[in-house]
Amino acid sequence: MSRPYDLVIENGTIHTPSSSFKADIAVLDGKISAIGGPFTEAAKRVDAKGLAVLPGLWHVHCHFREPGHTYKEDFQTGSAAAAVGGVTMCIDMTNNTPHPTTLEDYEMKKALVAPKAHVDYALYGGGLYPRTVEALAKAGAIGIKIFNTRHIKEVYPYISELGVLDHGILFELYEATRDMGLVASVHHDDPEWCKRLTFRDYIDKGRTDAMAYHESFSKGYMYGHGMVAGLAASLYYARICGVKLHVLHLGVMPKGANEMVHHAKYDLGQDVSCELELGTMFMNRAQMEKVGPRTYNWAYDPEAGWDAIKDGTADMIVLEHAPHSKEDVDPGWKDLFSVPLGVTGAQEYIPLLMNAVNEGRLSLNDVARLAAEAPARRFGIFPRKGVIQPGADADFTIVDMSREGVFRNEDMLSRTGFSSWEGMATKGAATHTIVRGTIVAQDGKLVGAPGFGRFVPGTAASA
Amino acid sequence: MSRPYDLVIENGTIHTPSSSFKADIAVLDGKISAIGGPFTEAAKRVDAKGLAVLPGLWHVHCHFREPGHTYKEDFQTGSAAAAVGGVTMCIDMTNNTPHPTTLEDYEMKKALVAPKAHVDYALYGGGLYPRTVEALAKAGAIGIKIFNTRHIKEVYPYISELGVLDHGILFELYEATRDMGLVASVHHDDPEWCKRLTFRDYIDKGRTDAMAYHESFSKGYMYGHGMVAGLAASLYYARICGVKLHVLHLGVMPKGANEMVHHAKYDLGQDVSCELELGTMFMNRAQMEKVGPRTYNWAYDPEAGWDAIKDGTADMIVLEHAPHSKEDVDPGWKDLFSVPLGVTGAQEYIPLLMNAVNEGRLSLNDVARLAAEAPARRFGIFPRKGVIQPGADADFTIVDMSREGVFRNEDMLSRTGFSSWEGMATKGAATHTIVRGTIVAQDGKLVGAPGFGRFVPGTAASA
Amino acid sequence: MSRPYDLVIENGTIHTPSSSFKADIAVLDGKISAIGGPFTEAAKRVDAKGLAVLPGLWHVHCHFREPGHTYKEDFQTGSAAAAVGGVTMCIDMTNNTPHPTTLEDYEMKKALVAPKAHVDYALYGGGLYPRTVEALAKAGAIGIKIFNTRHIKEVYPYISELGVLDHGILFELYEATRDMGLVASVHHDDPEWCKRLTFRDYIDKGRTDAMAYHESFSKGYMYGHGMVAGLAASLYYARICGVKLHVLHLGVMPKGANEMVHHAKYDLGQDVSCELELGTMFMNRAQMEKVGPRTYNWAYDPEAGWDAIKDGTADMIVLEHAPHSKEDVDPGWKDLFSVPLGVTGAQEYIPLLMNAVNEGRLSLNDVARLAAEAPARRFGIFPRKGVIQPGADADFTIVDMSREGVFRNEDMLSRTGFSSWEGMATKGAATHTIVRGTIVAQDGKLVGAPGFGRFVPGTAASA
Amino acid sequence: MSRPYDLVIENGTIHTPSSSFKADIAVLDGKISAIGGPFTEAAKRVDAKGLAVLPGLWHVHCHFREPGHTYKEDFQTGSAAAAVGGVTMCIDMTNNTPHPTTLEDYEMKKALVAPKAHVDYALYGGGLYPRTVEALAKAGAIGIKIFNTRHIKEVYPYISELGVLDHGILFELYEATRDMGLVASVHHDDPEWCKRLTFRDYIDKGRTDAMAYHESFSKGYMYGHGMVAGLAASLYYARICGVKLHVLHLGVMPKGANEMVHHAKYDLGQDVSCELELGTMFMNRAQMEKVGPRTYNWAYDPEAGWDAIKDGTADMIVLEHAPHSKEDVDPGWKDLFSVPLGVTGAQEYIPLLMNAVNEGRLSLNDVARLAAEAPARRFGIFPRKGVIQPGADADFTIVDMSREGVFRNEDMLSRTGFSSWEGMATKGAATHTIVRGTIVAQDGKLVGAPGFGRFVPGTAASA
Repeated sequence: MSRPYDLVIENGTIHTPSSSFKADIAVLDGKISAIGGPFTEAAKRVDAKGLAVLPGLWHVHCHFREPGHTYKEDFQTGSAAAAVGGVTMCIDMTNNTPHPTTLEDYEMKKALVAPKAHVDYALYGGGLYPRTVEALAKAGAIGIKIFNTRHIKEVYPYISELGVLDHGILFELYEATRDMGLVASVHHDDPEWCKRLTFRDYIDKGRTDAMAYHESFSKGYMYGHGMVAGLAASLYYARICGVKLHVLHLGVMPKGANEMVHHAKYDLGQDVSCELELGTMFMNRAQMEKVGPRTYNWAYDPEAGWDAIKDGTADMIVLEHAPHSKEDVDPGWKDLFSVPLGVTGAQEYIPLLMNAVNEGRLSLNDVARLAAEAPARRFGIFPRKGVIQPGADADFTIVDMSREGVFRNEDMLSRTGFSSWEGMATKGAATHTIVRGTIVAQDGKLVGAPGFGRFVPGTAASA
Repeated sequence: MSRPYDLVIENGTIHTPSSSFKADIAVLDGKISAIGGPFTEAAKRVDAKGLAVLPGLWHVHCHFREPGHTYKEDFQTGSAAAAVGGVTMCIDMTNNTPHPTTLEDYEMKKALVAPKAHVDYALYGGGLYPRTVEALAKAGAIGIKIFNTRHIKEVYPYISELGVLDHGILFELYEATRDMGLVASVHHDDPEWCKRLTFRDYIDKGRTDAMAYHESFSKGYMYGHGMVAGLAASLYYARICGVKLHVLHLGVMPKGANEMVHHAKYDLGQDVSCELELGTMFMNRAQMEKVGPRTYNWAYDPEAGWDAIKDGTADMIVLEHAPHSKEDVDPGWKDLFSVPLGVTGAQEYIPLLMNAVNEGRLSLNDVARLAAEAPARRFGIFPRKGVIQPGADADFTIVDMSREGVFRNEDMLSRTGFSSWEGMATKGAATHTIVRGTIVAQDGKLVGAPGFGRFVPGTAASA
Repeated sequence: MSRPYDLVIENGTIHTPSSSFKADIAVLDGKISAIGGPFTEAAKRVDAKGLAVLPGLWHVHCHFREPGHTYKEDFQTGSAAAAVGGVTMCIDMTNNTPHPTTLEDYEMKKALVAPKAHVDYALYGGGLYPRTVEALAKAGAIGIKIFNTRHIKEVYPYISELGVLDHGILFELYEATRDMGLVASVHHDDPEWCKRLTFRDYIDKGRTDAMAYHESFSKGYMYGHGMVAGLAASLYYARICGVKLHVLHLGVMPKGANEMVHHAKYDLGQDVSCELELGTMFMNRAQMEKVGPRTYNWAYDPEAGWDAIKDGTADMIVLEHAPHSKEDVDPGWKDLFSVPLGVTGAQEYIPLLMNAVNEGRLSLNDVARLAAEAPARRFGIFPRKGVIQPGADADFTIVDMSREGVFRNEDMLSRTGFSSWEGMATKGAATHTIVRGTIVAQDGKLVGAPGFGRFVPGTAASA
Repeated sequence: MSRPYDLVIENGTIHTPSSSFKADIAVLDGKISAIGGPFTEAAKRVDAKGLAVLPGLWHVHCHFREPGHTYKEDFQTGSAAAAVGGVTMCIDMTNNTPHPTTLEDYEMKKALVAPKAHVDYALYGGGLYPRTVEALAKAGAIGIKIFNTRHIKEVYPYISELGVLDHGILFELYEATRDMGLVASVHHDDPEWCKRLTFRDYIDKGRTDAMAYHESFSKGYMYGHGMVAGLAASLYYARICGVKLHVLHLGVMPKGANEMVHHAKYDLGQDVSCELELGTMFMNRAQMEKVGPRTYNWAYDPEAGWDAIKDGTADMIVLEHAPHSKEDVDPGWKDLFSVPLGVTGAQEYIPLLMNAVNEGRLSLNDVARLAAEAPARRFGIFPRKGVIQPGADADFTIVDMSREGVFRNEDMLSRTGFSSWEGMATKGAATHTIVRGTIVAQDGKLVGAPGFGRFVPGTAASA
């Protein structure tokens, strides 16, 4: 051998979407150099005996609040939380000010976050102006994120500004996205519906406290039937346009949405994917009552989510990370309709997911597919990432399936300083988060430095 | 026999949805008294030898322009045209000023039209204000007609005023209609989409002439994909609401609409019906090029319509009657996007339909189902009307299947003074239009007097 | 009026598949002359005040054991039982010796039964020899009945002789039946399967008593999965052949059969109909334990039957009449596998059915469709029979929905002398059975004389 | 490194079901030791520059005629042909005398073939006696092959003896196979149907020559509708039994079979797989007319086969190898119904398949799935074989996609001495066939010695 490997991960069991097997992994120059062994010469060795070695897991729905709302989170704190949780790759969703809806603002965001990331990341372009989509795509947007929504009280101004409610503009965004070969990722909604019914039955009656909000959520008012109706129209437009549609927030929407996506995919053959929001499957009533405004949803129908994994409706999974400060959300105990909504998820995602694996809800092979290979394929980054294969980036999430833990606010790296999941116990957690061959977090501690994480451009990026 | 029958129709062949058979029909006091024979004593006899006796055919989509646009049409001219064509029962759609969206305006309309009708009629309530639906229903509205649309140039002010684009209000209209047990009949649309694409590709480019318009129609811009997207959302809302939805303009919409309705009906079990617009199946390119702005649609995909009859997607058929004056529409040769849109159909409906029967497209039994029994059932008027059965109203459309004719502008009773179908030849036409035992039109001539037609209230009408 | 009507049925409520309405019916020369009224002059009047007037109900699955097993039943006793029960038209299934599988034997059977029938009747041709099908059809066979089965112990020799197990011959029978335009009605089976499993798990283990038999029935051994597998193959052959297939014994077969028929009808568009055997929905465990070998089936999954009515899988309903003598079947208490199998049903059919109507399981309109119009249409006798329409045969089943009764062996007109339903109470029963204008049974008493019933030839009968 | 690798395959492009990438492969002790590189020390190196490295491809449908018909083929000649063609693993189908239907005969066959195989192999147990299935499974049967068929003229005595036509026995074989956890692989048929129709329309009319036979094939007589009907019944039995069914000869059967399998898999959720016979997609009319009795099928509907790959109906692909001597089949020019039927395929399989890849019909990733991973998984040999993964057997098919060739009888290693594909030109062929790290064929020449190939026992084999 001409030169020793930079890193060898040894004695572990590798889990891919199709198989589980024991093999060592040798890394050179940040890439997977070889799988198998024996790999005798290595600058560094990680002993994964008794551990599960997964392809680096993606978090596809991060709101790291940069720029504009960095008092809630910034790319450093957000990506640090993700890294410690076991995430190797983040896709950041744009909903801040200024929004990356123009080339200038996209480039500004790229520049701002470059020194801060602990893990690799991609950035959505903000879909607002059809005419800027081409420039965003060439600047490296991983996809075009469209907010087909407004908050019913517009208390969340950055979403309202980004809201594309005119279906003519939505369609032109689809055309432009299709022409660049990217994925259009859409938060669907029909806010008129949501607004009217919610005001009528809750706000206008003075029922605004956190439990009233959660009741309205479980009735399909907040984040409810309006999302499904918006999806219904969008699926049709996407089909006649020919754009690759990526449906966000499956699992949050009432299950009519699942039926629609399944029908589009399997009966109509439409090119549509979707990500399943795990939060609605994990957040139970007790936790919801405890954290109140620190969550905006809970598991009123979790089986619909698990079914979506089994029957192929869901392509990816994620635990959305939409952080706010305590000061932002805690007034929600009194009026949850008037505060910004979100859950924390970057750090809690993998432990909650591994806990579900331990409960038999899905397998580690499923995780490798849903949280690594599928997003890498859909966003065009496969086989650079998302797979354990020679030549791929040496991204790994190494997991100890027997490690137990309890979420504590004081352990959270997010700037929020709290966890929506505070006090919940889990079994199964990441021991090593490895990005391009470098350990960036280990045993719950951040190891790497900000700025290590690299920007991963989308498929239409200029050379 | 205590007293002679008022009328006996003898020697004809009766066609019902399920059967064709020879029998005479005896009428007493406007009702069918007996079917069969021999009925020896009768004040009047109609010899139907060689003719087809159908249950009185309904025209379920009339715009008789009363009040407010009576220079285009009024209830007398419109219902006269219908009577001469062979129609015994009209449902009038509200899109004039003042609209029958309040009790006062509905009652005013009832009063205005009462002295004018040649055939029986029902009146939709105008769905605009959820709070007035109950009063409209109790005043006799046959259903609630909702214009989920606006004309892209708002040149048609009465529709714009009636447009319910806010899905929250639409949903509340569904709730109110459901509570009264009526049918919500909806012209679906998503005018933002239509407007943006049409302006972009036609109007803003100066392409506004009639042929450009028709090109835009065949591309799914005008009366196109926006309608399907609006339908997609509405079907979902109607399903979760539990309202009886009646989809208007099937056949006008691109055939994605057919798939949606079929899926809702047969896979999801939704209580949804729809009426198929025959105009798009009969209007061919040559006629469209000839009449230009005197039609707004043509048969770019007629087979989709015939399929909808065969596979049970369509429940009813109609040839919409949406009359305008020549002065209104003829400027459309230059700019068809800026003039009101419509086709004439009241007088031409039955001859065009019988011509299709002669061509083997459907049977007289199908006609009895699609144009009589199905609307009578859906609107709750069965078995008072829609059926040849003792006790039912003695409404009949008697047809000579071998009678040939050519539509001529000068023969039209509509105030428009023209026919969208001018010059087209048909085989098969009504010989007698009989309403409650009285001949109101015979052999193309009006026989009865205005005011004979009676108002048929819907199922929620107060006693 | 030239001459008085022969009969007027007055003051009743008529129930058709699509409507219920009050009207009188006038009969002349055995045909319905007029419906409605007033019909003043009549030789005879039946007051149906408070009663339901249905089209004459068909019993489509009679085994009247003529010729060859007339000690069990003959056409007189069988048709008398049917008449008293409320049946106006019987289709006799051939499974006796000599079988009507040749022209000579078919004509012999016609001659034998002609003087005996109390109600109208049709006779299946026996499907055994492809080369004789044409002659049977021309002699008036209503359809071709094929026994694709043998009894597992061949204790029932006349079925074994008729068994068509060779699928090549079965297919040729389909071809011949298709060429004559008739329906091929098939008792499907795969007796090898049934035989092997039943012998293995029951007979060879000495478990032969009635309760062991019924256990084997509920496990899908006797009349079970073999029937479904036979159906699976037959549906395919019928489809490629293009024959009209009529599936017998739906309801007896495990519900995989329902799924197959539904798939063939609605997904593949095959021309297939089926009759639902009500016995398996009405016979409960208590009755089964009481009558033992006097029934061969019971309601282990009745909901599957009701579902088949609701979702359109079942086209017709019947309570099979397969009578045996007590001496034949009572040894079945000890060995039910070795005795002939059957239930009585001719007399009990309508009361059990009306009881189900009273329980809300189906409507009188459903009954008119499933037990009159549907069989008349499928067998090509519509509109001569199966419909209340001028010109049709004046066949009526008049029912008192409030009449209560209990089945007693001593009241049975069948030669069996017992009822499988002995002791069961019902509400709803026929008051008048009227065939071609003549009352043949009234209030549980036989009125007419044998020989009144007429042979109804199938559609391929020679003039 | 402690010791050099035994073999390194370098510079090639690896194709897996999910990815294609450049990487070297290091082999040690017959297993894949590492994938990637650099692997500096190796006893032997294969330069795969410009070549495609696939997991070792399986031939899942070999009839090597051992014992009993070794004048047609034996394990040495058959496996040599397979090796030269590019196959690394064969599954042998039992249809010779004595058949491996008992433990003794299975063990005898194992002993006979052990010294002869050039590639690894598995042996089906012969499904004839339910009571012997357990012993066959424990002796290593890869699955239980059931001939639910007989040749219509029984000219092929060894199939007739093996024919399981009694569905009771078939079901007991399913039960026994299910209990051992093995796959039941079935050649479905309904020979009565086939026999009757073929005799009637061909043989009895003296139409027996090769072209008459091929006409009967294309009409669905020979290997036609009877197979589909047999499948219909079997699918039902397999479902209620719970056995893993493997459907053989998809592609040979008329496409009703495809619909049935798709319905069972996707609508009913049945555990059923099937292998697509490529012969019917490749054999065209010209070749069929040229080779006459040297093929028994041809591509009358090849698109149905390609569709089955696209829509997931087919799980595996194969080109059946069913060799006969010229003396056996050439009399078929005169009477093809009276000679044994088959095609050669062991040697031609991979070149024909690669030709299809070059034509764009499927990808090399599809090939890796359909011809390696899928059979390995279904038969329980994954991940020992079927995958390029550390620890797996070092089986590879290395292919030069630009190598052109023409099949010539004189090049065939099969004892038949001819090819059904004689004269056909292909592009794309194996350069190296590597089994457990050893090259057994290279550039169309056999390299290894008989006896190198090892027996691969099924999942129920005793330790």
